[in-house]
Amino acid sequence: MMNTAYRSVHLTASRLINPNPISSSLLHLLAAPRRSSPLRRRFLATPFSSSLYIPMAAGDDQVPPPESHLLEKQFESFRVQLEESAALREQIRAVVMEIESATRLIQANLLLVHQSRPIPEIIEKAKEKIDDLKKFYGRLAEILQKCPGQYYRYHGDWRSETQAVVSQLAFMHWLETGTLLVHTEAEAKLGLNSLEFGLETEDYLTGICFMSNDLPRYVVNRVTAGDYDCPRKVMNFLTDLHAAFRMLNLRNDFLRKKFDSMKYDLRRVEEVYYDVKIRGLISGGDPPPNVQAQS
Amino acid sequence: MMNTAYRSVHLTASRLINPNPISSSLLHLLAAPRRSSPLRRRFLATPFSSSLYIPMAAGDDQVPPPESHLLEKQFESFRVQLEESAALREQIRAVVMEIESATRLIQANLLLVHQSRPIPEIIEKAKEKIDDLKKFYGRLAEILQKCPGQYYRYHGDWRSETQAVVSQLAFMHWLETGTLLVHTEAEAKLGLNSLEFGLETEDYLTGICFMSNDLPRYVVNRVTAGDYDCPRKVMNFLTDLHAAFRMLNLRNDFLRKKFDSMKYDLRRVEEVYYDVKIRGLISGGDPPPNVQAQS
Amino acid sequence: MMNTAYRSVHLTASRLINPNPISSSLLHLLAAPRRSSPLRRRFLATPFSSSLYIPMAAGDDQVPPPESHLLEKQFESFRVQLEESAALREQIRAVVMEIESATRLIQANLLLVHQSRPIPEIIEKAKEKIDDLKKFYGRLAEILQKCPGQYYRYHGDWRSETQAVVSQLAFMHWLETGTLLVHTEAEAKLGLNSLEFGLETEDYLTGICFMSNDLPRYVVNRVTAGDYDCPRKVMNFLTDLHAAFRMLNLRNDFLRKKFDSMKYDLRRVEEVYYDVKIRGLISGGDPPPNVQAQS
Amino acid sequence: MMNTAYRSVHLTASRLINPNPISSSLLHLLAAPRRSSPLRRRFLATPFSSSLYIPMAAGDDQVPPPESHLLEKQFESFRVQLEESAALREQIRAVVMEIESATRLIQANLLLVHQSRPIPEIIEKAKEKIDDLKKFYGRLAEILQKCPGQYYRYHGDWRSETQAVVSQLAFMHWLETGTLLVHTEAEAKLGLNSLEFGLETEDYLTGICFMSNDLPRYVVNRVTAGDYDCPRKVMNFLTDLHAAFRMLNLRNDFLRKKFDSMKYDLRRVEEVYYDVKIRGLISGGDPPPNVQAQS
Repeated sequence: MMNTAYRSVHLTASRLINPNPISSSLLHLLAAPRRSSPLRRRFLATPFSSSLYIPMAAGDDQVPPPESHLLEKQFESFRVQLEESAALREQIRAVVMEIESATRLIQANLLLVHQSRPIPEIIEKAKEKIDDLKKFYGRLAEILQKCPGQYYRYHGDWRSETQAVVSQLAFMHWLETGTLLVHTEAEAKLGLNSLEFGLETEDYLTGICFMSNDLPRYVVNRVTAGDYDCPRKVMNFLTDLHAAFRMLNLRNDFLRKKFDSMKYDLRRVEEVYYDVKIRGLISGGDPPPNVQAQS
Repeated sequence: MMNTAYRSVHLTASRLINPNPISSSLLHLLAAPRRSSPLRRRFLATPFSSSLYIPMAAGDDQVPPPESHLLEKQFESFRVQLEESAALREQIRAVVMEIESATRLIQANLLLVHQSRPIPEIIEKAKEKIDDLKKFYGRLAEILQKCPGQYYRYHGDWRSETQAVVSQLAFMHWLETGTLLVHTEAEAKLGLNSLEFGLETEDYLTGICFMSNDLPRYVVNRVTAGDYDCPRKVMNFLTDLHAAFRMLNLRNDFLRKKFDSMKYDLRRVEEVYYDVKIRGLISGGDPPPNVQAQS
Repeated sequence: MMNTAYRSVHLTASRLINPNPISSSLLHLLAAPRRSSPLRRRFLATPFSSSLYIPMAAGDDQVPPPESHLLEKQFESFRVQLEESAALREQIRAVVMEIESATRLIQANLLLVHQSRPIPEIIEKAKEKIDDLKKFYGRLAEILQKCPGQYYRYHGDWRSETQAVVSQLAFMHWLETGTLLVHTEAEAKLGLNSLEFGLETEDYLTGICFMSNDLPRYVVNRVTAGDYDCPRKVMNFLTDLHAAFRMLNLRNDFLRKKFDSMKYDLRRVEEVYYDVKIRGLISGGDPPPNVQAQS
Repeated sequence: MMNTAYRSVHLTASRLINPNPISSSLLHLLAAPRRSSPLRRRFLATPFSSSLYIPMAAGDDQVPPPESHLLEKQFESFRVQLEESAALREQIRAVVMEIESATRLIQANLLLVHQSRPIPEIIEKAKEKIDDLKKFYGRLAEILQKCPGQYYRYHGDWRSETQAVVSQLAFMHWLETGTLLVHTEAEAKLGLNSLEFGLETEDYLTGICFMSNDLPRYVVNRVTAGDYDCPRKVMNFLTDLHAAFRMLNLRNDFLRKKFDSMKYDLRRVEEVYYDVKIRGLISGGDPPPNVQAQS
């Protein structure tokens, strides 16, 4: 392929000398060999060259001006750069597709909570896949290590998959402990660290919002299964989560919209809580009225 | 606003207690300071505090469960992070707006070439503004230096302005020399260097495409003004430029589309060249007929 | 129209002569018959013919250059091909419109389930139409048999109608048996077989998704009619169906989007099940609490 | 990955038996092993199974109904089918990208005709690449041979690239001979044959239209270079080509639109011919007036 490129460069170059020395155009682009190469001399010797190179001054040497050398190198180096970048994205894409597969399997497991499968069992199986995730993020980190300072250049290629992963990890954590999985712990679970290849704050927060989006459905199905304590627990959790987010002064972007949608999750859960309360399905168990005198 | 935040924290906190110590939810979110800080003691000293921490076992110390400490720090640090990032973007935006102003002034100058004003004069005025641009990019570099590795995170904030700048620099360079401004020279003109804060290859290439888009109009106006040599020079230049780009194997994205549009610039210029040639407005300067005897 | 064609051929042919015998252009296009045919001889005998073929050398025989003969045949055969293809599409379209009519009638029947008409009755009527469908697909198969290997060339012409048919068949099957109509059985019902003219997997799967989209409405209306067992059955069915689809690793295309929407059907049915459960409208039927002791 | 799938199937399956034998849901989806496998028996033996399988009749064997076996096989076979199809598309895509690269290089060569490079030289270089194309289409044919009858299913994956190839081949043929490259010859050049893997008539015709789109530019640049015979030759050629197409009775689709645009190519060439004629740049050389008495 390069040979043809050389030849087409020469054919192009033949038009580059024009009577006006000031306005010499682009010269000798691409992978044309150095000035002294046999290919170039052959080119200059063709029957056409005498008519193709019409220099300003008769008898001018048919050698392209110096800056053409710089241009050649320029576009050749661009070509190499762009190919390297594309190759990198291909590597990243391969790993990201593995991450996607793993999250799909974890999701298949997690969705079983909606059918009242025992949680320890579900968590156990899902955890096996998390070891896989850890491995894949390790690979991503290796790939990115080869190009320091370029993390954010390619970050978009694994952003949404990572948000989904955080959402799953946080949901599993909540099922096990009833608490919010913190950022540092999420990072640790995936074998990431913020010094080299970390978990972006915005990805973490967006993932938490996605987890929140799944809670109303969980609560509905738990109540259907007879667990009437669930609504209150989830409602408390979501209320605090929402309050936490509200302190973040989010701008008007994707994360802000996800946060706004959390309000609807909370309202749905409050309605389910109302449903069980009003039917007397749960006993007292709420803090005395004086503490609850709130807006 | 922070005061209201504190109050909502207090009001929210009152709901944080639940009878089940195992499932303690989020506690003490937001801008709550360390446990021993005066702010916290003030918090603990409020009328609400006694009810905020109603531990399962009577007589419990009103200290939130250990993991809440971690959560506090988490959202507080998020808040700080996001505010720092927003502040950074504000700084960047301020400089970018100055860059935009400068390019607007340069454009006002450059457009005078369409009215046949002497090129040296136009270039001279525009060059003054380039010193300004150099200054502004210097400021951008300083801002980004404070957060190493984050160049690409914020790059989108000055991307299109930079493409416009390259387009102008390249046009001016062509007016002066008839050659293509190379990437390294463009970088130097803006006081950039690829080790610290450089000129992105894609921004450079897109800027060159934008310059190409302006050439047909220039040629038309030059011919109107009687400069019948212009079409040929521009045609040669664009032909070689297009050939150079074609070796880049561009994917199907914005840069690719810009490159595709270059073909229409070239065709328009060829048509103008045709117009002047066929009316005998330019002298020979083409290879003799026998070289071109084709079918 | 053909007469005009002949005349335009003649008029065109008059321009076909050029002084350069090497560069003879296209000659004798279109519906010109063989050289020795009476039509051609008639052509050659016209007042124009003497000027149509003005060969370079005087006294040349008025026979068009050899490659023109090939060109004639080419465009004539293209004309025939394209007309045959168009005719085929017309035949297909006629049958597809009959399929559309039949599905419209089946739909009119099936919609009666939302008004609590007895299912056996509805199924009975719908089944009559299925015999019609079988007949129509038989005709389609015959049409396609005449052009082996072209199934996929025309498949788009009956794709969406077939998806609708599958959706209906699957719904009827579920009403009767509570199970999913499998692909092979759907094929059999329509008299198709995968060796000759089969039911495309993607059409089958898309049809199943469409059926899923109709179930929430059915459940709502059944509950309104007092059938409180319906939600649980449908919920179990959809849960399993969704789980089955999730194993398919669907790419991001139409089928993928249809599958994604299935999640909303399931959530809606879960909500209805929740409604009847919490109002005590259905008796136990759930596994005892100890199995569901979760956080 | 398959192990986890099996387990999740079992967990799902545990809910599938319901009190109503008529409405048994989907059973034992996905990659669940055969009824008699150890995995299944282990599942059936778990502490949960007693509560999960609530058969209609007490003491029922916990064996899923027969049709579940069919469903398992169904979705597993779907998964395999869809993966095979995706893998095939990947293979096709790899070859198509090679075809794209080759056409890009041929284009780089062909564009040199606009700079009056000698045609034999250009054709020679381009022909080397055509051998490559022949190789690539050979690979495509091999890939498609593995799935007989599926040519049209994947045809869209190489359709536009093939149209571009035909356009180039036809242009090269016209440069060499001044005639239209016929379909059979185009097929031969690419090593295709209509019995196995051929050149679609519509792709050939569309490719010819693309070639026509490039002719006005060629004519303009030839006249600029002093070749005043070119316009008339191209005009004659395009006129006949357009007349040929007009016999095809094209429906209103992409090919039809491409054909309609040919009219603008012809008009542009006619204008160039007018330009040179009216300036006396070409001598007589037209057939005597009486033959040219046309509309």
